[in-house]
Amino acid sequence: MTFRVGVIGGGQLARMMIEPALALGLEIKVFAETEGSSAALAATQIGDYTDVAQVREFAKTVDVITFDHEHVPLGVLQTLENEGVSVQPPSRALQFAQNKLHMRQRLSELGLPMPAWAEIKTAEELNDFISANGGVAILKTPIGGYDGKGVAVVRDAADAGEWLDNLDQFGGSLLAEQKVDFVRELAQLVARRPSGQIQHWPLVQTVQRNGVCAEVLAPAPGTSDEALDRAAEIAETVASGLGVTGVLAVEMFETADGEFVINELAMRPHNSGHFSIEGSKTSQFEQHLRAVLDLPLGNTGMVNSHAVMINLLGVDDRNDFVSRYPEALAAYPSAKFHTYGKSARKGRKMGHITVTGENEHSVLEDAKAAASVCLRA
Amino acid sequence: MTFRVGVIGGGQLARMMIEPALALGLEIKVFAETEGSSAALAATQIGDYTDVAQVREFAKTVDVITFDHEHVPLGVLQTLENEGVSVQPPSRALQFAQNKLHMRQRLSELGLPMPAWAEIKTAEELNDFISANGGVAILKTPIGGYDGKGVAVVRDAADAGEWLDNLDQFGGSLLAEQKVDFVRELAQLVARRPSGQIQHWPLVQTVQRNGVCAEVLAPAPGTSDEALDRAAEIAETVASGLGVTGVLAVEMFETADGEFVINELAMRPHNSGHFSIEGSKTSQFEQHLRAVLDLPLGNTGMVNSHAVMINLLGVDDRNDFVSRYPEALAAYPSAKFHTYGKSARKGRKMGHITVTGENEHSVLEDAKAAASVCLRA
Repeated sequence: MTFRVGVIGGGQLARMMIEPALALGLEIKVFAETEGSSAALAATQIGDYTDVAQVREFAKTVDVITFDHEHVPLGVLQTLENEGVSVQPPSRALQFAQNKLHMRQRLSELGLPMPAWAEIKTAEELNDFISANGGVAILKTPIGGYDGKGVAVVRDAADAGEWLDNLDQFGGSLLAEQKVDFVRELAQLVARRPSGQIQHWPLVQTVQRNGVCAEVLAPAPGTSDEALDRAAEIAETVASGLGVTGVLAVEMFETADGEFVINELAMRPHNSGHFSIEGSKTSQFEQHLRAVLDLPLGNTGMVNSHAVMINLLGVDDRNDFVSRYPEALAAYPSAKFHTYGKSARKGRKMGHITVTGENEHSVLEDAKAAASVCLRA
Repeated sequence: MTFRVGVIGGGQLARMMIEPALALGLEIKVFAETEGSSAALAATQIGDYTDVAQVREFAKTVDVITFDHEHVPLGVLQTLENEGVSVQPPSRALQFAQNKLHMRQRLSELGLPMPAWAEIKTAEELNDFISANGGVAILKTPIGGYDGKGVAVVRDAADAGEWLDNLDQFGGSLLAEQKVDFVRELAQLVARRPSGQIQHWPLVQTVQRNGVCAEVLAPAPGTSDEALDRAAEIAETVASGLGVTGVLAVEMFETADGEFVINELAMRPHNSGHFSIEGSKTSQFEQHLRAVLDLPLGNTGMVNSHAVMINLLGVDDRNDFVSRYPEALAAYPSAKFHTYGKSARKGRKMGHITVTGENEHSVLEDAKAAASVCLRA
């Protein structure tokens, strides 16, 4: 028999699903937007994921549809679901990933810890929120933001001018959130099967630069068992409460008094989980495939005590990092280098490096040093 | 830039090279014999590897040619080498993998430990060898044998009747070897770059059943550091002395007095190294790609103290093991299941299971138990 997974989107997340699909003997097909995508090796269709007819054709070739990104229109997915296609995560979960305002509303209903927030339709509402929250707010477009886009720090409604004038582009309103005074950022990954089984990985610390994930430390250093349990419980409540299947990443802030508040959600394998390829008994990519096929989930324990992941962000339009292999592989024979088959572009997520081991300090130092060889001009 | 590897042969070894190629961002192309091979995902050409014109076309699309098996005619490879194609391992090494008599001759020149052996052209020569070696010998066809085929235990030249009558099929003579009274079988894997760098994995113990690898214990239990060093030195001498590049597996017998004698060689990733996918910092498949591209080799240390690999050999023409996933994955969430996309057939190498951990005993027990769920009728 075969288990056939169809992935919409040909980015690096789809690419990294190909590896465990090969290992487990699962069939994987990718619906990519363009030729030569990161996941081109498994691409069986090139097309437009907003066109229900094209996605329907793709769906006929697989047992389940899942995603490299969260941008497929809900209407497309609902149409296919009504036709009996297994879409994982389903549209009823993805609606919350596609609209941050709906996400906040639903998480509030579930009683989960969050920054203060408000739906904003007017400059007055925004200024009221800013006043009530210490003179500053994080303003977000409910739809269309990622990697720091669609997010602004505002101290007055005037700072939000264009967005307030174009509310129709964002679903009719904006989302204002309290600017959380956090000591660090964390991410809690879980995976959930349609039939309910949930597994969580250890909480990780993420280091963001310019709104983009730069480093991930797994597990999050200096975290009590009680805090680890609390983080897992938050993410499991989100997964169950929103009906998420596959991998869910819950990005959180940790405040000075040790509280966790939910920042963002991602309903797919996530940059904060790349450490798990070598760091965990079961990687997020393998687990995602198992979960969306409703197969039993794997052990999410650490393989070694510590893992550090460093993103390789493009430095210019020439250095593709692969060209640094002769030097970098020689200098760091224990580092695991990943590149995504993308052409070089400044700021682009081109690859990552993971180092695992028993010594928290040397793992971090080695990963940084290996990355620096790649990033050097 | 891109590093492009071409693999001749579409079996599970080629399939398992695809995964690290994706991770490292190397381009991999497979020249398969048939559609629907284990490595079909990366197959760019289907054809006959004995046809130099077809292999030449394939070679034009890659930077280096390597192999899933050792059956490509030397003449084909020599022609391409003369045309400037990088073939790794080169024909001058592969000649020894393709002819066991030449291999014994060369290993003797290198002074390596081996069973007594002789080239056999007549019944008299064979009977003399049998008499001189305690009344029994292992008779091998120098070419064409694998997985127990082309090997016979003989006590009289009459036992070898057909082979002696058809010497032309085997290169003009047979190979007789002393039947070694061994306490266990071992395999030493190394990888070597064309520019000379060599790395070895820890020595492993292999358990054979009916001439086929059944289990691998890594590292080989109860082996002294001195013995581990000696095994590595033997394999490194073979690799350098025969000019092998990429992964080399040296299968050895251990005698009651702790001596190692070389049994067989394989100049490619090998069943005895599958444990390294999860068990080693650098798997044999990643290392093979690095080696044949003359890229720096990775760390071959164990990730955990122990790894056990159990082969999943077909039990009938219905059980493809994938159909056992719902039960097997649930029962053994820490076991890593690998299947090769092959249809079921009794005795066929369909997949394998690896378990890693710190406890030598439980790792073996868990791997056996996970396999038994798959193998159950």
